[in-house]
Amino acid sequence: MQRFKRVLIANRGEIALRIQRACRQLGLETVAVYSEADADSRHVREADVSLCIGPAAASKSYLDRDGLLLAAKVTGAGAIHPGYGFLSENADFADAVEAAGLTFIGPTGDSIRMMGDKITAKRAMREAGVPCVPGSDGPLPASAEEVRAIALEVGFPVIVKASGGGGGRGMRVVHGGDDLENAVALTAKEAQQAFGNPTLYLEKYMQKPRHVEIQVLCDTHGTALWLGARDCSLQRRHQKVLEEAPAPGIPPETIAEIGERCVQACRQIAYRGAGTFEFLYEDGIFAFIEMNTRVQVEHPITEETTGIDIVAQQIRIAQGETLGLRQNDILMQGHAIECRLNAEDAATFMPSPGTVTRWDLPGGPGIRVDTHVVSNYTVQPYYDSLIGKIISHGATREQAIARMRVALAEIRVEGISTNIALHQALLADPQFQEGGVDIHHLERWLAERSPS
Amino acid sequence: MQRFKRVLIANRGEIALRIQRACRQLGLETVAVYSEADADSRHVREADVSLCIGPAAASKSYLDRDGLLLAAKVTGAGAIHPGYGFLSENADFADAVEAAGLTFIGPTGDSIRMMGDKITAKRAMREAGVPCVPGSDGPLPASAEEVRAIALEVGFPVIVKASGGGGGRGMRVVHGGDDLENAVALTAKEAQQAFGNPTLYLEKYMQKPRHVEIQVLCDTHGTALWLGARDCSLQRRHQKVLEEAPAPGIPPETIAEIGERCVQACRQIAYRGAGTFEFLYEDGIFAFIEMNTRVQVEHPITEETTGIDIVAQQIRIAQGETLGLRQNDILMQGHAIECRLNAEDAATFMPSPGTVTRWDLPGGPGIRVDTHVVSNYTVQPYYDSLIGKIISHGATREQAIARMRVALAEIRVEGISTNIALHQALLADPQFQEGGVDIHHLERWLAERSPS
Repeated sequence: MQRFKRVLIANRGEIALRIQRACRQLGLETVAVYSEADADSRHVREADVSLCIGPAAASKSYLDRDGLLLAAKVTGAGAIHPGYGFLSENADFADAVEAAGLTFIGPTGDSIRMMGDKITAKRAMREAGVPCVPGSDGPLPASAEEVRAIALEVGFPVIVKASGGGGGRGMRVVHGGDDLENAVALTAKEAQQAFGNPTLYLEKYMQKPRHVEIQVLCDTHGTALWLGARDCSLQRRHQKVLEEAPAPGIPPETIAEIGERCVQACRQIAYRGAGTFEFLYEDGIFAFIEMNTRVQVEHPITEETTGIDIVAQQIRIAQGETLGLRQNDILMQGHAIECRLNAEDAATFMPSPGTVTRWDLPGGPGIRVDTHVVSNYTVQPYYDSLIGKIISHGATREQAIARMRVALAEIRVEGISTNIALHQALLADPQFQEGGVDIHHLERWLAERSPS
Repeated sequence: MQRFKRVLIANRGEIALRIQRACRQLGLETVAVYSEADADSRHVREADVSLCIGPAAASKSYLDRDGLLLAAKVTGAGAIHPGYGFLSENADFADAVEAAGLTFIGPTGDSIRMMGDKITAKRAMREAGVPCVPGSDGPLPASAEEVRAIALEVGFPVIVKASGGGGGRGMRVVHGGDDLENAVALTAKEAQQAFGNPTLYLEKYMQKPRHVEIQVLCDTHGTALWLGARDCSLQRRHQKVLEEAPAPGIPPETIAEIGERCVQACRQIAYRGAGTFEFLYEDGIFAFIEMNTRVQVEHPITEETTGIDIVAQQIRIAQGETLGLRQNDILMQGHAIECRLNAEDAATFMPSPGTVTRWDLPGGPGIRVDTHVVSNYTVQPYYDSLIGKIISHGATREQAIARMRVALAEIRVEGISTNIALHQALLADPQFQEGGVDIHHLERWLAERSPS
């Protein structure tokens, strides 16, 4: 493993700025790459070196693997941090980075590949002792009768999923045997179109689960740590909206037990870097759904509750350093909440790009702001609509909620529409305040409130 | 003690906003008062009710006791929070507030009065077991010979101080017997002019001390807690510039011992609310200089290292609630630094009022911002030049410094001059990085760097 002094950040927006901060705090130089649309971005102006890598379309800039490798070569970067999204879970890119003699700040291409295929991932996790939802334990057979037998054994309702899917696409719930054959055929067709791979698998469909995930960090010297759980059940169309840590109402011993299983699995597959085990949780049962082999949008709430800088640790691990921590060193303190601010229409959820003419941020105790937006910044229509994250931390969940509510009330944004009012309404909702809502809560809640 | 639902905040700027946040998080309504110059301030727009109380001059607005009491009556406020500065340590105002049937969020007038007179304060603290610097133990006698005898017993150098002084005014260092009589006469004359009180006292002059202070919180049910130490040695003309917690290089046991003495003294004088014991510290010796009977500008670094919301606790105490904490519950975690951002000329330190045309704030892990400034805000020439505070928190002092340096580099301010470059230079200074510089360090450092 080769030490590096300069890191190319193959991303944009708030996560590019987040990675830059970690690099600079570690004394590393940064290279910003940007599309023509992002020339005036904060991550560009903060970097030691910056390079335009193509036009606005991500396929021609942030997703252009050869362009990124060339940019690293030209600027003398010794490592590439992929952030989240874009190429962060592209195994071939990770391999290409390492083949070019550079360090990929993340797991090996093989780890990414293993976790990218949901069937392989689930099998590996089951073998490593991570609890999984009952299901087909592999690709669905071609015979409709065999599929039916599996579904009956698992018990309806079941969910049919594309092996190459993700982000909520390529899946279909089936409530009874009559619909099964048709659902399988449709999903396979969609999977072929969307992911170039018609392979499907089937799982028990948990009806009112919560989304609970475990953050892990693994160095290359055999240390693997879990950093507690996040509850990301508040989702709309499979997109997380508000996350919190720890997961309300789940006993710490339960989290510790599942956390231990996750890090044992990491050791078994020789995982390195940061990762997240995503679970559905219902009636005390954890069921593994997938592992994200990258830093996640919601990593700050774990940082707030553990005091550990996850992005800095990713970089340190990639330098070959030890985590320098044992599991017992990690104290979970207080409660943290993250609200994702999106530039979107409050009623339709459609993106609301445009120039931000006013951008007054909240502050004070327990309030952290991660954003690339500044006054007069223009939110581009080409990328996702995340304009920032407000993170509150308090001694208790009640304090974290109270701080977040005051913080959201202080924000003044003009020039674009945002989802701030949605967050405010959610935080005021007694069901949310009670804690432990399921992954369908937000959609039900929105449906109840939508003008019919 | 009467419970209140609405708090009048008798202050402006960042501390008014800070108090508002605490009130709102506790579910209390707020009344903002403002001078004509502050009509467009953030603390005004965030309040539930706001009231103009006079022209720009503080003497006719923020210092107008009758006006403030009237404002509280008109708006139905049940309590007044004085913040820092202005009327926060005015015993007569505290008495008048309580006489009007309102709650003063702070100690009793008698406590303020006792601590406001430096001779009485020192005597009380000495009696309560708080270590004090050797000195006259009371007002200086009129006889020059008696003064001389005291000085010789204490040992030169000594410092002659006005009993009614503070903020660095009304004091004079004397290095030998020949200068003593003259120095006493001059200081008495100045003290009469500045404070209307010529009473002086005399102390051993510590030559290279550090400024180390202990934060305390006391409820009205007998609980008194110390929240660790802050090192505020970086001062220019007796004004604090950068503070940190804990105080580098002082063993926790030493702090615990002095902290215990402080809270014992609080119990002895039946102190209530938040307060700060200020000490000079040299060669392992603590010497009490004064107690501040209010929240301090630098309170956030204690909040970051203890997780306790000091302003919220002030309010809770004033409601008659218990702290709900024992000393053992208070864990000191990591290291925090505060940089005071001032609107001032970088070379001359003269105030630099004006309209802030760009105001891009830092963020990310471990960065807290307390500011009333937003883009297009006009910094007024009538009040102090503090435009905000950047607070960094890290697992170690090194991490807190690294985070602060990156944060300061991210700030973009246009339209006014600031002291950000001074902070950056200080943080890069090897002597500061080593830790434990004395209260003269910054002035020496500036003198070495000033063009001669």
